[in-house]
Amino acid sequence: MEFTKVIKATGNQQIKDLKKLHTTKGRKKAGRYLLEGWHLVKEALASQADITTILVTADFKHLAELEGLSGIDLIEISPEVAQSLSDAKSAQGIFAVLSLAKTVPVEPKTARGAWLLLDGIQDPGNIGTMVRTADAAGFSGVVFGTGSADLYQPKVLRAMQGSQFHIKLAQGELLPWIEAFQAKHYPVFGSELNEAARPYNQVGKHQDFALIMGNEGNGMQRQHLELTDLNLYIPIKGQAESLNVAVAAGILMFELLA
Amino acid sequence: MEFTKVIKATGNQQIKDLKKLHTTKGRKKAGRYLLEGWHLVKEALASQADITTILVTADFKHLAELEGLSGIDLIEISPEVAQSLSDAKSAQGIFAVLSLAKTVPVEPKTARGAWLLLDGIQDPGNIGTMVRTADAAGFSGVVFGTGSADLYQPKVLRAMQGSQFHIKLAQGELLPWIEAFQAKHYPVFGSELNEAARPYNQVGKHQDFALIMGNEGNGMQRQHLELTDLNLYIPIKGQAESLNVAVAAGILMFELLA
Repeated sequence: MEFTKVIKATGNQQIKDLKKLHTTKGRKKAGRYLLEGWHLVKEALASQADITTILVTADFKHLAELEGLSGIDLIEISPEVAQSLSDAKSAQGIFAVLSLAKTVPVEPKTARGAWLLLDGIQDPGNIGTMVRTADAAGFSGVVFGTGSADLYQPKVLRAMQGSQFHIKLAQGELLPWIEAFQAKHYPVFGSELNEAARPYNQVGKHQDFALIMGNEGNGMQRQHLELTDLNLYIPIKGQAESLNVAVAAGILMFELLA
Repeated sequence: MEFTKVIKATGNQQIKDLKKLHTTKGRKKAGRYLLEGWHLVKEALASQADITTILVTADFKHLAELEGLSGIDLIEISPEVAQSLSDAKSAQGIFAVLSLAKTVPVEPKTARGAWLLLDGIQDPGNIGTMVRTADAAGFSGVVFGTGSADLYQPKVLRAMQGSQFHIKLAQGELLPWIEAFQAKHYPVFGSELNEAARPYNQVGKHQDFALIMGNEGNGMQRQHLELTDLNLYIPIKGQAESLNVAVAAGILMFELLA
């Protein structure tokens, strides 16, 4: 194993710089984000993601699987440095630095297949889980609408389980997406109960469509709601007031996609 | 509003005792657990749960809704005490102490309807979400199998959103449950992929049955797996390796229950 360098001090300037990637501002400024843990780093390697640097402890148990990597700066770090870089209670001993620039922007007009549109979803665990589920269900992509939590924060990355390498992800206003789908006569489904709302399992299967999931507490934005072709609801048989948004999205996605 | 007392010091002995309810050991010893936040306390009140004490800050905005409660010790606490008692980043200003004893033990032999059996589920958020979803789907109860995370810990309570007051919950070995269901010829569905596993949407709808969900990483225990009548799987169309266990449970529960 050829390390380009060894960093043992948590006060090291490069480590300090990497810690800034824990914030949205820091990621934007550096144009990079940080992945933690073997499962996610392995997914990134398998997907030929744009990894610039891998940082790993000397006793990391899958060290052998990092043999022969080219074009990646491989740095050995002490367990103390690993813990200081980690967002988790106990660091897993491996980190990768990835370029944000590699994310190719998707144009709403060229979008096909099933897309999940996140309308102000706040909880990072919910967001990450929804991307993972969209991947599993065979969706083409997920749009993080303005007001949704940031895509590259550690908790989102952990819950996504590497699905960012499998499906298309976009960030921005949802309006152009809704309009682009409607221009092609692809249905846009909302998920808010109103007079015209239909049970989710009575609208058939679809290939090209958008499904909008609203904020955990406040639901969808009014302007988006008004544009939907149909709102769907999941009938509640018990006494719970509602479903967790990631669970609801999972039930809808698996039911709707042909 | 009649407060029985006012506690302003975080070092107060009663507050110290209540903090012990954050641990499984502390809850067992005291025979009580702590609920935090208005939504959950309101659910407990509406369900006539066995509340012994409510602790609330003077500026709590729903204070008027606590008028006329009888048999409950109402204590005013300072914002500092609220924060010290809280499991969340910012305390919501209301807590309730509930008796564990009120939970009536359910006998496997008398169980009817749909039951979710948790086989070593670890993540408190997943567990709580599964109980909430079971409630919404119209399940009769959830059994926390040995090795599953503790039912009354703050993160589970938060994710359950009060569903513990709506459906039956039991803790213990899953084996007697599986045997009791099979004795009545109610199907016991596993959720692990094997040669005989069937797609989840090809086994019809059922009224009385058990659905077992396995541990996030390791799946179901072998001895339980061998006893299932049928194992179900959710076909993955994308590249994700698996679904989050709470999402998978949601999809299965809503599909299976008649």
